[in-house]
Amino acid sequence: MSRLVPPHGGGELRPLLLSGEELNKEKEKAKGLPRIKMSSRETSDLIMLGIGAFTPLDGFMGKEDWKGVCDDYLMSNGRLFWPIPITLSTTKEQADSLKEGSEAALIDEETGELMGSITVKEKYTIDKVHECKQVFKTDDTEHPGVAKVMSQGDINIAGPVKVFSESYYPGQFKGLYMRPAESRKMFEEKGWSTIAALQLRNPMHRSHEYLAKIAIEICDGVFIHQLVGKLKPGDIPADVRTQAIDVLVEKYFVKDTCIQGGYPMEMRYAGPREALLHAVFRQNFGCSHLLVGRDHAGVGEYYGPFDAHHIFNEIPKGSLELQPLKIDWTFYCFKCDGMASMKTCPHGKDDRLILSGTMLRKMLSEGAEVPDHFSRPEVLAILQDFYSKLEDKVEVKLHKYAEGA
Amino acid sequence: MSRLVPPHGGGELRPLLLSGEELNKEKEKAKGLPRIKMSSRETSDLIMLGIGAFTPLDGFMGKEDWKGVCDDYLMSNGRLFWPIPITLSTTKEQADSLKEGSEAALIDEETGELMGSITVKEKYTIDKVHECKQVFKTDDTEHPGVAKVMSQGDINIAGPVKVFSESYYPGQFKGLYMRPAESRKMFEEKGWSTIAALQLRNPMHRSHEYLAKIAIEICDGVFIHQLVGKLKPGDIPADVRTQAIDVLVEKYFVKDTCIQGGYPMEMRYAGPREALLHAVFRQNFGCSHLLVGRDHAGVGEYYGPFDAHHIFNEIPKGSLELQPLKIDWTFYCFKCDGMASMKTCPHGKDDRLILSGTMLRKMLSEGAEVPDHFSRPEVLAILQDFYSKLEDKVEVKLHKYAEGA
Repeated sequence: MSRLVPPHGGGELRPLLLSGEELNKEKEKAKGLPRIKMSSRETSDLIMLGIGAFTPLDGFMGKEDWKGVCDDYLMSNGRLFWPIPITLSTTKEQADSLKEGSEAALIDEETGELMGSITVKEKYTIDKVHECKQVFKTDDTEHPGVAKVMSQGDINIAGPVKVFSESYYPGQFKGLYMRPAESRKMFEEKGWSTIAALQLRNPMHRSHEYLAKIAIEICDGVFIHQLVGKLKPGDIPADVRTQAIDVLVEKYFVKDTCIQGGYPMEMRYAGPREALLHAVFRQNFGCSHLLVGRDHAGVGEYYGPFDAHHIFNEIPKGSLELQPLKIDWTFYCFKCDGMASMKTCPHGKDDRLILSGTMLRKMLSEGAEVPDHFSRPEVLAILQDFYSKLEDKVEVKLHKYAEGA
Repeated sequence: MSRLVPPHGGGELRPLLLSGEELNKEKEKAKGLPRIKMSSRETSDLIMLGIGAFTPLDGFMGKEDWKGVCDDYLMSNGRLFWPIPITLSTTKEQADSLKEGSEAALIDEETGELMGSITVKEKYTIDKVHECKQVFKTDDTEHPGVAKVMSQGDINIAGPVKVFSESYYPGQFKGLYMRPAESRKMFEEKGWSTIAALQLRNPMHRSHEYLAKIAIEICDGVFIHQLVGKLKPGDIPADVRTQAIDVLVEKYFVKDTCIQGGYPMEMRYAGPREALLHAVFRQNFGCSHLLVGRDHAGVGEYYGPFDAHHIFNEIPKGSLELQPLKIDWTFYCFKCDGMASMKTCPHGKDDRLILSGTMLRKMLSEGAEVPDHFSRPEVLAILQDFYSKLEDKVEVKLHKYAEGA
């Protein structure tokens, strides 16, 4: 019998997405409410709340929760582990016009869509620099996650939300987009109880395949879980990634050992803290394990390559039911005669096949031959095709050695 | 900080080996006691009790424990999980001469050494066929474990023991033989808390190396734990195995990711039940995980190749703190371009390099070339040397495809 890991917090999944009569009623009502415009990060967080991926949260966080999460990874009830603030902001002017206890409509500023509503419980200011230093370990606005926080509205609005829409995600990522209740159902139908999530925002080369296969060796299956929310410029678009992963899975994985899913969150690039958030919501999706590779959810040089490993030892025991599968830097080694990592390969630099992201991109965009063993030929063909059609061949700064997850 | 898994039962290690003044006193006393001759299995069990590997047992089991263990994997207190009876037998004649509450000396029938003493708490008869069917799933006396039970004395003697000696093990397997307190100390000194034990009674080919490396990828380290107790004829002797493992570890493992140890138990070949016993005492040695491959501790065709995987799901939750790492049948696959298992390789038979044990032995003993990718050349050289010196080239029935652990 399948015994999945419980949702975060130990209770039931808590999706906040309305449907049917209730949805119509609340949407109608919201048309007459003051409108708060949400950034793309806030919108994607609202959808995560909607599908139950942020279970057991009931809305955007108040000041005590914000502070507890920033400083101690803990909600203000002192019990629930949470690693990154989930907040909504607006201008001082609009905040002044919102009465506590009143409702407001939530609008996606990019699409203009009415996404949900909030009951305003609290309006508060935060020390943005403090949040950034705690969450991102930096207040450098070159960091894309920091930039988002620093440019958000000056007043945070907190309170329970009702969610009306999942935006374009279910349509645009049909077959990939998946809600926690759906992934759990699929796992149960397969009789799985141990599932490792593989966070992915890049195509899968041999290194990622190796991570996935380590997980398959010891778990019932792997959940290749792609971010389909916003990325930074230069990252490969989700449809190309999906094509490349599809062919890899078809040719190199045993049938029914891996499920692909997409989730609508926007990358914050918060490195170790984001790895913890990945763990929290993967548990909601029914995963018992999370693969944590090198520079997980990192960007630039802000985090040590294994900070996201260490942080799982720093949080209080029992914070998560999900267990991290921490994997070192991986590569093909000629002496090992297969894939290996710094933990399993004792050989030298010259025995290992290591390509920088920049070098790989150059090879792909120029149609040059990528050395054997680095990636599957079927995957390379798709990427070569993508790059050959790119008009704008602007060089984008990629990670120095390998592409983080 | 290193936080090792607790010994089985949750308390302290319980080594029953005496030392110093107490040892001298008890040995002196034992010289005047009636002598019970122990079989090699009973002797090795006594040593396992002596070094604390069978923590928290205090001696040989009584009838209620025997029955609970056979039928429900439980000691008669209803709480302590134990998978295989640990019992001592003697003849009816000798049993009649032993009074309950009296002491007896325990003699290794093979070496004649005084190994310890027992306080006779209980004398009882068992249904040997029942034990065999429960533990070995067969009462076929062709099964080496069954044969031992069926030929043991008719009366079991139960009671707490004092252990005087570890026999020839510390001397003969110097540097390899290790007590649970010692392995725990080594793990702690390395700062390890997650350690996977690799049960070994054969040389390590690529398949075993692959198991060990999967474990190293996700744990702090691996404990290559060799059985140095009695094997069945045709198995490769411990010193040759050790040489072969030494060279493999030196050339193909990262320094300080793996520790070798030897333990004095005799193989029972009880397949799934023995896998559970392996788990119990590995936990005592400080291991958090046990690699369980194909046909673990099996012999002949008595067990399904993955019975030892399934049994971990059948025992009550919480029976063990140690977790099994269940790995499918492994091999080199040309299309995968590396090691893989039935769970990770979707390709066909012709893409995989699979040698039967019989075929491998034939190649080695005839000095024929073993195909690339099956084993490391340094390992093969040692085995070829061993086989070339064997006078007696009797064909021994090995497992059909790969050698079990």
